[in-house]
Amino acid sequence: MDMLMFELDKNATEPLYEQLYDAIKKGIVDGSIPVEKKLPSKRKLADFLMISQTTIELAYGQLLAEGYIVSKPRIGFFVEDIATLPYIDKAVVVPEEKPSAPRYDIDFSPGRIDTASFPFSTWRRYAKDAVDEQQQNLLLAGSAQGEYALRKEIASYLYQSRGVHCRPEQIVVGSGTEQLIPMILQILGDYNVYALENPGYQMTHHIIGQYGQRSLPIRIDDDGLDVTELEKSDANIAYVTPSHQFPTGAILSAPRRAQLLQWASYQANRYIIEDDYDSEFRYIGKPIPSLQGLDHQQKVIYLSTFSKSLMPSLRIAYFVLPEKLMPRYHALFTYYTCTVPRFEQHILAQFMRDGHFSKHLNRMRKIYRKKLEKLTEAIAQYDAVNISGEQAGMHVALTVKHDLTAAQLSTQAKAAYIRISPLSQYMLKEDARYDQHLLLGFGGIDEQCIAQTIETLFALWGLKKGEIAP
Amino acid sequence: MDMLMFELDKNATEPLYEQLYDAIKKGIVDGSIPVEKKLPSKRKLADFLMISQTTIELAYGQLLAEGYIVSKPRIGFFVEDIATLPYIDKAVVVPEEKPSAPRYDIDFSPGRIDTASFPFSTWRRYAKDAVDEQQQNLLLAGSAQGEYALRKEIASYLYQSRGVHCRPEQIVVGSGTEQLIPMILQILGDYNVYALENPGYQMTHHIIGQYGQRSLPIRIDDDGLDVTELEKSDANIAYVTPSHQFPTGAILSAPRRAQLLQWASYQANRYIIEDDYDSEFRYIGKPIPSLQGLDHQQKVIYLSTFSKSLMPSLRIAYFVLPEKLMPRYHALFTYYTCTVPRFEQHILAQFMRDGHFSKHLNRMRKIYRKKLEKLTEAIAQYDAVNISGEQAGMHVALTVKHDLTAAQLSTQAKAAYIRISPLSQYMLKEDARYDQHLLLGFGGIDEQCIAQTIETLFALWGLKKGEIAP
Repeated sequence: MDMLMFELDKNATEPLYEQLYDAIKKGIVDGSIPVEKKLPSKRKLADFLMISQTTIELAYGQLLAEGYIVSKPRIGFFVEDIATLPYIDKAVVVPEEKPSAPRYDIDFSPGRIDTASFPFSTWRRYAKDAVDEQQQNLLLAGSAQGEYALRKEIASYLYQSRGVHCRPEQIVVGSGTEQLIPMILQILGDYNVYALENPGYQMTHHIIGQYGQRSLPIRIDDDGLDVTELEKSDANIAYVTPSHQFPTGAILSAPRRAQLLQWASYQANRYIIEDDYDSEFRYIGKPIPSLQGLDHQQKVIYLSTFSKSLMPSLRIAYFVLPEKLMPRYHALFTYYTCTVPRFEQHILAQFMRDGHFSKHLNRMRKIYRKKLEKLTEAIAQYDAVNISGEQAGMHVALTVKHDLTAAQLSTQAKAAYIRISPLSQYMLKEDARYDQHLLLGFGGIDEQCIAQTIETLFALWGLKKGEIAP
Repeated sequence: MDMLMFELDKNATEPLYEQLYDAIKKGIVDGSIPVEKKLPSKRKLADFLMISQTTIELAYGQLLAEGYIVSKPRIGFFVEDIATLPYIDKAVVVPEEKPSAPRYDIDFSPGRIDTASFPFSTWRRYAKDAVDEQQQNLLLAGSAQGEYALRKEIASYLYQSRGVHCRPEQIVVGSGTEQLIPMILQILGDYNVYALENPGYQMTHHIIGQYGQRSLPIRIDDDGLDVTELEKSDANIAYVTPSHQFPTGAILSAPRRAQLLQWASYQANRYIIEDDYDSEFRYIGKPIPSLQGLDHQQKVIYLSTFSKSLMPSLRIAYFVLPEKLMPRYHALFTYYTCTVPRFEQHILAQFMRDGHFSKHLNRMRKIYRKKLEKLTEAIAQYDAVNISGEQAGMHVALTVKHDLTAAQLSTQAKAAYIRISPLSQYMLKEDARYDQHLLLGFGGIDEQCIAQTIETLFALWGLKKGEIAP
């Protein structure tokens, strides 16, 4: 074969060079153009097929780049031994329908917020403003720690609302607690033993396990973490939710706070991770200041998120490192890029700077307080049910006197399309004290419907007003 | 002390209950109200201070919640032993000025894109549309794998442009390669040995080390990864950039592709991670189809990003898992929340759905091709400098014949505020073949300035047109 005989269609939408490329490749793959065969010169093939030499050049160039042919300078192009390289057959992909998530008529899960009260128009204005021809360099990678403008707003907010003392330089912004905890683990190094609240936030337990580190469950009571049990344990790092324990809702008492900070001060490798996930919403008195603000020994890593205060789907969280851990952070994460889109960071920074965040929090606090009142009122009518952890946040714990366990009650509710989790789901180690406890998130329930939803749920469980259940 | 004597200022902006709370707390902290002291009853204190009982209730409630006092039912409130709990002194935080990043007059780093050509107005429209009162549930957490609407667009794009065969169900969206690689490592499990291209992408090396796994450097030549060296190594997972090797720009040839896929097929625990980071921009012929499209044995994990094709600051990347690894993904990441904001995901999904992404790519390809032409023209005038890796992407490799090494030339450039990195910076293991190589990213350089910037840089190095340097 001195020439390649192909039928090229000059009227096709596919460019000529692609048709030629496809035809030659097919020939090489199916063996009709044998290995080591010399291809016709560009000029000759162009004359023969009556097409331009550029077209041949493009086709040969592509084959060359993909390794189907090799070029021997001043001699020509030769077919390579492509061994078993198969031809890509372009079958049509038919995407399957997305399997729908389990649907609930009533959803008491703690992650839900009140979506109706979000300031859409304000947020939209800032979203629009962020995408700006005049600020082209926002398209490029920004600071690894997060935009300085945002960190500045966070530092000022934390100081005023949470008593946290920090400079913007100590703040690291990321896409959520799940993304930041692994970074904290790496900063703290290997061979640590983590004390986790029991019951507690499962995700932390999960991540620590994934990183091959050890964790120990420590019991919770009405004053929060049992620091005396912590003192007796091997743990050197305590992960706590002092402002509103997740999931029991307990508040870490002042003596316990002091005891915990003291525990940390006894050894150089001891640290406290303070997860302050929903401290913005406190309904009685003013918010309880953070552990970080009480700490004078650089023992507290403060961690928080905008998931509750703004929206879970925003994916913006942050931690505050003690100054002495900053060099370790810089050593480990030089190569890192902040995971939060810069547009999003600037929208939030402007929103905070112009006072909309405080306004939003004040508004939401009233809304959630109202919901909580309706909830406690509704529940108060049932002697079989006790409520706790209602001083703050967007969830409470229920204790239900019943022949069925909380887990069984949850299953019963699920069958009726009501989602409410037993506290046992958050246990790292079994503890019979919580067998009758359920976690009720009220953030996402319409205020007008609260009384009705509680009545529906409790009726389902066979509870009657003013009575102890069967 | 039977009563608490405080001066409360009814005209102050601080509410009375806060004044009272502050005063009592201060008294407890400084010891003027001793431990175990019984506080006056609410009624008595209210009468005494001539304020409402509610005010007292709020103050006591706060003190109670923070553990400064305890309540003994039917007896009263008592001061707790708060040990060393210090008072938070609210010093004013003065944020320091942000240290400015090192500035360059000319930046040839490979992460830079052409920002002037971004379709700001189109993107802004979609950004505005995404924040919509009618779609309140976009505020709540979405799919852990990423929004289905976006994964559908990615699947269709990948099929058409990259020959990747996948269903949206196989795609996992995340905030960048750095965030996704750790997930892939976890899916592949412990005790793997990773083969990395040398020179190659440092971040991967770094992450693998952080996860306590082993990596081996494998040499690169003009046809990409030396698969024969891989075959002789202990590695069971190969991390490759076949479409445009980073940083040399080599394209993995067809025989090598076949050899690599064959290598993977020999053992059950062998996999290939195909990082297709800038394959959208190919200047000669059409893009080279992905390894994933050639793989019929579910051996390829395909990884890509929108950092080059749209913008680095968007923080959206994704990987495509073989079907057989999906159960492992689901087992590991049930608890996970997708790290990309949902608004951002929907903006991108709509942008792609309406054809703007392809339009943008076609436009950018022309722009980058033009820049590349100017660059090669400018460089062609210097006999001392060779260019390679220019078939695709947004960077090329330069080989400079010079008494100074590439690293020294880079330092010299830096002193003149020009940023250009030696290839040695990307070496996992020393290899003298690259001592004279530099990486030149041209994406961010204005087309009109390219000739001038090259002239400036080369003059700085003492190169003269048409001459071999000193």
